[in-house]
Amino acid sequence: MHPLNSKVRVWGSLRIRLLVAIAFLLTGAAMADIQPRLNVMPMPASVQMGTGQLPIDRTFWVTVSGFHDAMLDGGVERFKDQIQRRTGLLLQKPADPAHPTLSIHADHASEKVLKVGEDESYELTVTASGATLTAPNTLGILHGLETFLQLVTITPNGFVAPALTIHDQPRFVWRGTLIDVGRHFIPIDVLKRNIDGMAAVKLNVLHWHLYDSEGFRIESKRFPKLQGEGSDGRYYTQAEIRDFIAYAHDRGVRIMPEFEMPGHSRSMYVGYPELASGSGPYKMEPGAPDAEMDPTKEDTYKFLDKFLDEMASLFPDEYVHIGGDEVAGKEWEANPKIQAFMREHGMKNKQDLQAYFNQRLQKIVSKHHKIMVGWDEVLHPDLPKSVVVQSWRGQESLATAAKQGYRGLLSFGYYLDLMWPASRHYAVEPLSGQGATLNADEKNRILGGESCMWSEFITPENIDSRIWPRNAAIAERLWSPASVQDPASMYERMAQVSERLEWLGLTHRSSLAPALDRMAGGGDVTALHTLADVVEPVKDYTRMDNMKGPLDFRAPLNRLIDTARPESDQARRFHDTVQAYLSSGYKDRAAEASIRAQLIAWRDNDPRLHPLLEKSFLMAELAPLSADLSSLGFAGLFALEYLEKGAPSPAVWRAQQLVAIDLAAAPHGDLLIMVAGPVRQLVEASGGVPPAP
Amino acid sequence: MHPLNSKVRVWGSLRIRLLVAIAFLLTGAAMADIQPRLNVMPMPASVQMGTGQLPIDRTFWVTVSGFHDAMLDGGVERFKDQIQRRTGLLLQKPADPAHPTLSIHADHASEKVLKVGEDESYELTVTASGATLTAPNTLGILHGLETFLQLVTITPNGFVAPALTIHDQPRFVWRGTLIDVGRHFIPIDVLKRNIDGMAAVKLNVLHWHLYDSEGFRIESKRFPKLQGEGSDGRYYTQAEIRDFIAYAHDRGVRIMPEFEMPGHSRSMYVGYPELASGSGPYKMEPGAPDAEMDPTKEDTYKFLDKFLDEMASLFPDEYVHIGGDEVAGKEWEANPKIQAFMREHGMKNKQDLQAYFNQRLQKIVSKHHKIMVGWDEVLHPDLPKSVVVQSWRGQESLATAAKQGYRGLLSFGYYLDLMWPASRHYAVEPLSGQGATLNADEKNRILGGESCMWSEFITPENIDSRIWPRNAAIAERLWSPASVQDPASMYERMAQVSERLEWLGLTHRSSLAPALDRMAGGGDVTALHTLADVVEPVKDYTRMDNMKGPLDFRAPLNRLIDTARPESDQARRFHDTVQAYLSSGYKDRAAEASIRAQLIAWRDNDPRLHPLLEKSFLMAELAPLSADLSSLGFAGLFALEYLEKGAPSPAVWRAQQLVAIDLAAAPHGDLLIMVAGPVRQLVEASGGVPPAP
Repeated sequence: MHPLNSKVRVWGSLRIRLLVAIAFLLTGAAMADIQPRLNVMPMPASVQMGTGQLPIDRTFWVTVSGFHDAMLDGGVERFKDQIQRRTGLLLQKPADPAHPTLSIHADHASEKVLKVGEDESYELTVTASGATLTAPNTLGILHGLETFLQLVTITPNGFVAPALTIHDQPRFVWRGTLIDVGRHFIPIDVLKRNIDGMAAVKLNVLHWHLYDSEGFRIESKRFPKLQGEGSDGRYYTQAEIRDFIAYAHDRGVRIMPEFEMPGHSRSMYVGYPELASGSGPYKMEPGAPDAEMDPTKEDTYKFLDKFLDEMASLFPDEYVHIGGDEVAGKEWEANPKIQAFMREHGMKNKQDLQAYFNQRLQKIVSKHHKIMVGWDEVLHPDLPKSVVVQSWRGQESLATAAKQGYRGLLSFGYYLDLMWPASRHYAVEPLSGQGATLNADEKNRILGGESCMWSEFITPENIDSRIWPRNAAIAERLWSPASVQDPASMYERMAQVSERLEWLGLTHRSSLAPALDRMAGGGDVTALHTLADVVEPVKDYTRMDNMKGPLDFRAPLNRLIDTARPESDQARRFHDTVQAYLSSGYKDRAAEASIRAQLIAWRDNDPRLHPLLEKSFLMAELAPLSADLSSLGFAGLFALEYLEKGAPSPAVWRAQQLVAIDLAAAPHGDLLIMVAGPVRQLVEASGGVPPAP
Repeated sequence: MHPLNSKVRVWGSLRIRLLVAIAFLLTGAAMADIQPRLNVMPMPASVQMGTGQLPIDRTFWVTVSGFHDAMLDGGVERFKDQIQRRTGLLLQKPADPAHPTLSIHADHASEKVLKVGEDESYELTVTASGATLTAPNTLGILHGLETFLQLVTITPNGFVAPALTIHDQPRFVWRGTLIDVGRHFIPIDVLKRNIDGMAAVKLNVLHWHLYDSEGFRIESKRFPKLQGEGSDGRYYTQAEIRDFIAYAHDRGVRIMPEFEMPGHSRSMYVGYPELASGSGPYKMEPGAPDAEMDPTKEDTYKFLDKFLDEMASLFPDEYVHIGGDEVAGKEWEANPKIQAFMREHGMKNKQDLQAYFNQRLQKIVSKHHKIMVGWDEVLHPDLPKSVVVQSWRGQESLATAAKQGYRGLLSFGYYLDLMWPASRHYAVEPLSGQGATLNADEKNRILGGESCMWSEFITPENIDSRIWPRNAAIAERLWSPASVQDPASMYERMAQVSERLEWLGLTHRSSLAPALDRMAGGGDVTALHTLADVVEPVKDYTRMDNMKGPLDFRAPLNRLIDTARPESDQARRFHDTVQAYLSSGYKDRAAEASIRAQLIAWRDNDPRLHPLLEKSFLMAELAPLSADLSSLGFAGLFALEYLEKGAPSPAVWRAQQLVAIDLAAAPHGDLLIMVAGPVRQLVEASGGVPPAP
């Protein structure tokens, strides 16, 4: 073909395509009734689609009738600010402010201190000419505003919200996220943006794990050596804590503090060794053994009474978490006085001693008008039924508690630090397994659940990317009807929510680029992005298991594992494309082209990445991963060639490839290449029967 | 070649490459003496490279001897925080804190209110075993810390700073940036992060253009209708202003307020129409004609005396800018009383009337112990020589003022809103042209210059990307010796600075992705990024000239022109690669491959982008750009084919291509495709003599 002719032809076709596009735009008005996807997460309890769309332009106007207070007004202001950010519109008073775009009506205030089980329902109606949001109280209005924000969509005719009617309320009353600030300190501004994210997906409790062995993060005025000796100077002042609680309250989020005891609390004993069961002294050093509070001394309870008195007035929430998990009991065993006490009181084991401790503790908690929450281990028939049990062990443990009359929360299956994919968390149902056998009353005792962000490897820089967007999937599990279960729909909506969460200031997406720039020392980092996009941190506790020596909580967290996303979108999509290609009998041309382009990019990435690897000590560990990704590209491309030809690949070749793929699937630098599986499928398929003609 | 053999060969070669890489790393110690590039910007007055490198690890420790105060200590704390952010290290007290990594010594404090011409020098010595930073005062220490931060580099052996000795001080004493918050309000937190950016490149004045016709942004307690009626409710309280001034002071940045008069001040007259020369009433409406203060009424000066009295105590800086530019004089012409006044006083024109106004104004400014600064137009022999003239007109205007004994500042050539490339600003030399003819005393009157961020099309979201990184090039022009002029070195260092500025919280890089997501309504926006990466907003005042009707300062700023970067890095690099290819006689294979890959990506982008264009009203205007980019890809690829074959392209084909390229080079959607020029060069070259064999 002569270049000239070809050029003219293509140029012509482009112009034609252009004209088609313009014609399409001109007929945009005719498209106004096409329904956009419903990008709402968590999915409401009931949605009825209407006809038409409500235009959102710069005259978008909100009025509040009926009850309002500072909390509601603040929510409306933030809502308008978000409308502006997400659309780029600068809102202004319309000519006719008596006809608002959105009218809001609440009957009354929500509680001054948010209560478990408070009404959170709302009703949102959108028509082509206006929207109405009503709710019994401010909490419902806040939830409805978040739903409305998610509904705003760009179309050929401008920003719109689809016409619909939503009746919504949560399935579970307790929908929380635990953030551990003990092992690594997380500044208040980072927590605040996470509160914004939680409110956006209708989570309503931040469980603040305020200290652990590695650091005590609350200012105590009565016992200043707690934070003074028990931290590296990084802790929250009481003024900051009050401000933060008010911030969360205004967004409909309760703050439940956790005061962990008798284990996981070494940081308390650096300043107050007399509380501990060992002989001390205790230091803030990585790798020191866990220490335990001494439950046999009356002074311990005097201390706790004073300490919890101070904390009870600082934290207004009705619930106080006292930890209670993973008490190793080694200091107890080694202390003759404690052993004598146990014998005296007929205690057989550390469980009995802890139960004694918890009974004493519960009385103190109760004296300060709080309800005690604890991890599985606290469950003991001597405790009053008001105690709430949080289960890291699973639905069975939770069901056992419910059958005994205790209320419970599920966290098993919602550990964000384990680097599971969103779909795996999403599938964890509080009322499954033993939970499904409960009667109605017992089921009602399952208050909900909490995702957990344990912070062994967390920094202010990477925490958002560990919590988001996966936390939105857990939020949906806890808010939406149990029947909402399709992972494909969840992933599609989660992708939208994820983009939009960044308008709140979250950095789960934007923090990647600077971290990779830092690793590479600047310059063109495209090849590093290509690798980073297909790897995930190793799962479960593998990273800790792989460590030589104890966890060093002062170690830098600047490796690729600290930055790579817990779930690779690209790997998931590649996996889906390969399934489409294989199940089409190798006939899906679009899938084939996409797979090929991806494989070529991976094959060719290694030579591009190598110059960067050689410049940076943080990238040296990526050399095997990069080589393996290249191998996967080669293997996949050859497999594709066999599949396209319809000629089975030689068994020897396949065997070699599968060995190489196994190597590539093994972790390097605590990272996993997540596309090894689909490439393996291609290679395996290449040995099979050719597709039907 | 049989796939199997090929695979094994490549797999083998990968493993070998891996071993080589590991060997390379093991010999890293031997590489410690290799000098990294000096990524410092602005380039210091004097640098002497040493031998070796100072390791930066988590025991990095700073001590301060000699003088210190809260300003210095705060600077050291921010410095340590930045070291941690940029390296990911968690700094901790080393075993031997008596041997710090960096020791700092200042002789005395800097002035309580920063003074023009204050000593800003410092001396920084880095050896393999430690670094020393000394300066006469805190300002010098702050500058030296910014230099040190820039020196920190990643290597195969960890983070290091290269051994060297720097003696540094600025060439000009006044290095500023003007930010216009009148036309679009910019919140304090956005201004603060820009102060951080300014301090990072050693700029020392924020010229705060606090109001303009479109909005009055300062709280006046004496004249509350100024902000009350003259704004949309978006203004700074006096408490915010005081806090902001303290913030800037602590970072070595002066805040000079501008109170614009007698023109560009319509917002003042909404609440106080009696100050104006027309009959009013004045409203905050887009497109209203400019209004002018009435210089003939004594009440005007009484008002100004009270207003400036209030402002003089709010703004501690010795200098006050009174605007004075672009007085249309139409209200003056239309007012018979003013005309009579002019006749009475023998004034021939509006210039004479403005000169009279300025003399009266200057006396008021002086009474409040301030020095008056004004734009070119204020220059008049009746004004005292203390007045400083800021030139938007050019070096000639500046030189004229200097010859008359006035001090001056250059802003001509530094207008960031004109969307020029950094290199063009970088080439603007205050002492060139007429400036070069000045004698030493006159040259000393040129205090420096200011970049200007006029905000007709600026939002809190895009402002950082309009200021940065180009402002770093202007900062270098004003700080570094005049001999520092190489644009290639400037671009290389600016790229590094640009990445690092984001650690301060600036969003000039990270704000692109959310804005494109918004335009596309989510999903895969790779194709939109490909287009966005090669376009730039139209230059100079073309956007305003293209507008139908007056500027609507309430219009949404969410189009691609509002997001696209003022200077396309990718286009600049493509241009450079094409030059390398052409000047090599088409023999540079790496250049050819890079050009080809780029052209293919552009050619193939249009079909990928089209589905997105059809979904979004904000993207419809991009259809012609996308088609044109595709055409450029085609044209370039065919040209490359001719060049590679060594066969001249047919003249008819070339002529047609050049027409298409001209079309592609024309603006669409107020955007320019910046790669049309180099593609034109390829097409033109394809008609010429084939390269020598």
